[in-house]
Amino acid sequence: MFVTFEGIDGSGKSTQARRLAAALEARGQTVRLTREPGGSAGAEEIRRLLVEGDPGRWSAETEILLFTAARRDHVERLIHPALADGEIVVSDRFADSTRVYQGATRGDLRGIVDELHRLMIGLEPDLTFVIDMDPEVALARGLARRSGEDRFEDMGAGFQATLRDGFRALAHDLAERCVLIDGGRSEDAVAADVLAAYCARIGVRA
Amino acid sequence: MFVTFEGIDGSGKSTQARRLAAALEARGQTVRLTREPGGSAGAEEIRRLLVEGDPGRWSAETEILLFTAARRDHVERLIHPALADGEIVVSDRFADSTRVYQGATRGDLRGIVDELHRLMIGLEPDLTFVIDMDPEVALARGLARRSGEDRFEDMGAGFQATLRDGFRALAHDLAERCVLIDGGRSEDAVAADVLAAYCARIGVRA
Repeated sequence: MFVTFEGIDGSGKSTQARRLAAALEARGQTVRLTREPGGSAGAEEIRRLLVEGDPGRWSAETEILLFTAARRDHVERLIHPALADGEIVVSDRFADSTRVYQGATRGDLRGIVDELHRLMIGLEPDLTFVIDMDPEVALARGLARRSGEDRFEDMGAGFQATLRDGFRALAHDLAERCVLIDGGRSEDAVAADVLAAYCARIGVRA
Repeated sequence: MFVTFEGIDGSGKSTQARRLAAALEARGQTVRLTREPGGSAGAEEIRRLLVEGDPGRWSAETEILLFTAARRDHVERLIHPALADGEIVVSDRFADSTRVYQGATRGDLRGIVDELHRLMIGLEPDLTFVIDMDPEVALARGLARRSGEDRFEDMGAGFQATLRDGFRALAHDLAERCVLIDGGRSEDAVAADVLAAYCARIGVRA
């Protein structure tokens, strides 16, 4: 089972990924919690090139190639081996982030993102939680924990609003694997919704 | 005019690229001498991920994506602007290195290299010098100047022999833009051959 969390910066998806992983472990499952960009040693090195520095340091095309390189390393060195061992993999972001971010940067790039994914990655999640949130609230949360990894946050509130629309559209277009979750509530309420949706998907009682 | 030098490590292609650039500048041309992987600020950062460290740190697929990301940055931030300004660009390695190296690592990857090049790069040189050399001699030269950038040299002499065959085949297959140069002679003799071939190509007297 490969589960991903998607959404804009500050939407609470990292927290919710951790909470779902903890809830599944409490039920005796073996869970591998990971994130993108990064997740494997090599991909974490590429991550630094992507999330630090000036917003204009890479073109959108170079950025897509770096994200895809990091993802390839993550998939072949962590995700595929963990799935082969029967573990549940829970990832904070995956390919949908590239689809939405790079599509938001330049609409004409979505075709390139999809072609690169088909050529070099292939893997799709079994279940994706899209955490939806007002970008003003999310941006305030994101900036409240400035980490030096603020390159995308530095692109501003208008960009985040475009991203929100992109994630909502993606959840609609890929409804067979995506669940849209209202992230503008308490952490506990969101976590309960996520766990209920997970259990419904695999056919057990929450 | 976009000119590239290709060949195995230690074949003398970096020296010959510098010598051609100097000879053209002595004739009043404006020349931009560059190299791959690297050549632009971002691509040089990606270069460090590629040329340092353990030979097995990346899979061949991830490596191709990183080379293509570095090349995209190099092309859009240095090569295209320089060509647009009417400069002659001389690059120590370009896409042919990826074709030969990754093809040598795993033969089935040549199709992926070509598809990525078509999708993300497109540009081909006007003229390519393939410096041919016995890999035992070249390897000894390469090891004699250990620089910490020895990840590919560390793959050994058998790998270098496969690369030599790959570069020779490439020069044969792409004969309309490639000139195969015997690198096993004095530096001056090779430089004279290179300059003569360059002048023949653009139709002036050496």
